[in-house]
Amino acid sequence: MVLDTDLAGLTPGTPAFVTAVETVLTRFFASRRVLVEPLGPVFTEAVDALEQFVLRGGKRTRPAFAWTGWLGAGGDPAGPQAAPVLAACAALELVQACALVHDDIIDSSRTRRGFPTVHVDFAERHRAAGHAGDGADFGSAVAILIGDLALAWADDLVNEAGLEPAARARFAPVWAAMRTEVLGGQLLDINGEAGGDETVAAALRINRFKTAAYTVERPLHLGAALAGADDALVAALRTYGTDIGIAFQLRDDLLGVFGDPAVTGKPSGDDLREGKRTVLIAEALRRADATDPAAAALLRAGLGTDLDDGTVDRLRTLLTDLGAVDEVERRIAALTESGLAAIAASSATPAVKDLLRSMALAATRRAA
Amino acid sequence: MVLDTDLAGLTPGTPAFVTAVETVLTRFFASRRVLVEPLGPVFTEAVDALEQFVLRGGKRTRPAFAWTGWLGAGGDPAGPQAAPVLAACAALELVQACALVHDDIIDSSRTRRGFPTVHVDFAERHRAAGHAGDGADFGSAVAILIGDLALAWADDLVNEAGLEPAARARFAPVWAAMRTEVLGGQLLDINGEAGGDETVAAALRINRFKTAAYTVERPLHLGAALAGADDALVAALRTYGTDIGIAFQLRDDLLGVFGDPAVTGKPSGDDLREGKRTVLIAEALRRADATDPAAAALLRAGLGTDLDDGTVDRLRTLLTDLGAVDEVERRIAALTESGLAAIAASSATPAVKDLLRSMALAATRRAA
Repeated sequence: MVLDTDLAGLTPGTPAFVTAVETVLTRFFASRRVLVEPLGPVFTEAVDALEQFVLRGGKRTRPAFAWTGWLGAGGDPAGPQAAPVLAACAALELVQACALVHDDIIDSSRTRRGFPTVHVDFAERHRAAGHAGDGADFGSAVAILIGDLALAWADDLVNEAGLEPAARARFAPVWAAMRTEVLGGQLLDINGEAGGDETVAAALRINRFKTAAYTVERPLHLGAALAGADDALVAALRTYGTDIGIAFQLRDDLLGVFGDPAVTGKPSGDDLREGKRTVLIAEALRRADATDPAAAALLRAGLGTDLDDGTVDRLRTLLTDLGAVDEVERRIAALTESGLAAIAASSATPAVKDLLRSMALAATRRAA
Repeated sequence: MVLDTDLAGLTPGTPAFVTAVETVLTRFFASRRVLVEPLGPVFTEAVDALEQFVLRGGKRTRPAFAWTGWLGAGGDPAGPQAAPVLAACAALELVQACALVHDDIIDSSRTRRGFPTVHVDFAERHRAAGHAGDGADFGSAVAILIGDLALAWADDLVNEAGLEPAARARFAPVWAAMRTEVLGGQLLDINGEAGGDETVAAALRINRFKTAAYTVERPLHLGAALAGADDALVAALRTYGTDIGIAFQLRDDLLGVFGDPAVTGKPSGDDLREGKRTVLIAEALRRADATDPAAAALLRAGLGTDLDDGTVDRLRTLLTDLGAVDEVERRIAALTESGLAAIAASSATPAVKDLLRSMALAATRRAA
């Protein structure tokens, strides 16, 4: 897979980077047609839905971290491996498509990025066609298979990227770890919701594997592995990735409760209505159990219910008054500091140190 | 991944072959512990469930065809690539685990091989633990993730098999085609059930991709690709695989209606109660529509309903009287003949020609 684009000056987080990733993905989907078309229009329609889903996908955060890890470990963006490396980075977006499509079934989510989720979309197509059987079951079935396809195609894109065999071999164990960790993190998440493990440790463990490892640590590690980074640099990038990744999720947890709906695009207090078991909530419950049983009871009674705006406001005040918000802010600050310190002391190139610094601040100080 | 077993005399379909495949899988699961255990006991429990599911798995048909394809193209079972090739063959069982676990959610199946399906198993664990939320939703969520894990791990096993880079590169596009085809075939299947496409052509297309390509054609092709087979041999193996694979499914369709429950282990006439859109049924409907509208109406009214034994008997007689059973038997005979002719004229080794002949007869003349 060769790109015409000049990759030499490509900076993660820029529109040019997003375009380059999307170009790789568009070409990859085009390359699948020869496999897809013999199965006929029903399959083509499903694949088209997957492609639209993948190309609708935002900031390309994971490819950006992977590309940064590669640059930071001395990868040459003007060299012959740049296009193959970019393709391998783009494959992360197909893993992510699987994760999101399957997560949306698991969470019964109805919309994503302003569009119906895949299972809802196909349930609606089923009803519109007047087909037999339950539309919702049909939609879930199609979405399970579309997610599987995205996961399989992620590997195919890696295999067809044109990586040198040695780089491919270094990539494989990190890729394996990342996929196992994210699936394990999702399992912990649904189990925590069902089993009601309310501890801070449980919430942090889910953050660690479902978000930090998957979104920052392993993408950086993948890029570094492709460039043949030494152990010390890999360790520094992974420390940064874990710390900034967890801090990113902690910021997300705060925004899910306190974010401005006009900026986040989500109804205010949505995480409270969904009853998400975040570190913020775990911290608040821990504090309330120790000092204010009535507040603890109020929180437990309200979380995961259809709260009116007044109650959302009262719970927000409670989280602040209990000191949970400050505690989470302290954690974010400490993690950002330790992550940046690891990078500062590393052998990463100066330009990439700057880049990782601004990516860390963007991830942990954002308003949306 | 190296096996101690002597692979030199390993014949597909024998208990020794099944044991060798299961040894590879057991070792692979053991090798995952280092990735799984940091996530804690909840994930370990899910992985244990996947391992039990995979090791409960029968005849290892797909690895057997893949190994046969490799032998037939001159693979040396006493050589250094034998163990890596066996590991790559065994990876097919992890793809199959994903397909079955996800299929069982899609079909709402409650048991498989005498055990609760994965989603039912985890729904029961959820209820037994007294957890919050809907047990069935929880079971499906866990089973979606366990299936995803199996699909990801199939790739990991291939990557870690120790294949020579050139063999690995020949393997990749066939592996990509196989996974895309089986997912596409499953999509056609659920769409056919929902949309009620009753044609013989639609039923044959599902057979082709969901069963024949996935179970016989592509496994043989994978093995042949690993051995570096020439195009003519690959073409012969694929013709055999397509023909015998479709014939295998046609035999399955007949057994699903006429099989002896004591031999098949399934209630007699189960496919009629489930309303499966098989070639047998499509052929019967085509004939009834042309010659006997009352019979067509009777069939359509009965299929997919909770039929009593007397009605099952009447529908069976109808399928026979319409000539659909004879037609399917004719197709099986013709496909078996053309598949065997392709192999007979090929450059496959004499021992493998004999083996493929007996595998074809076992697949198409079986009673269970």
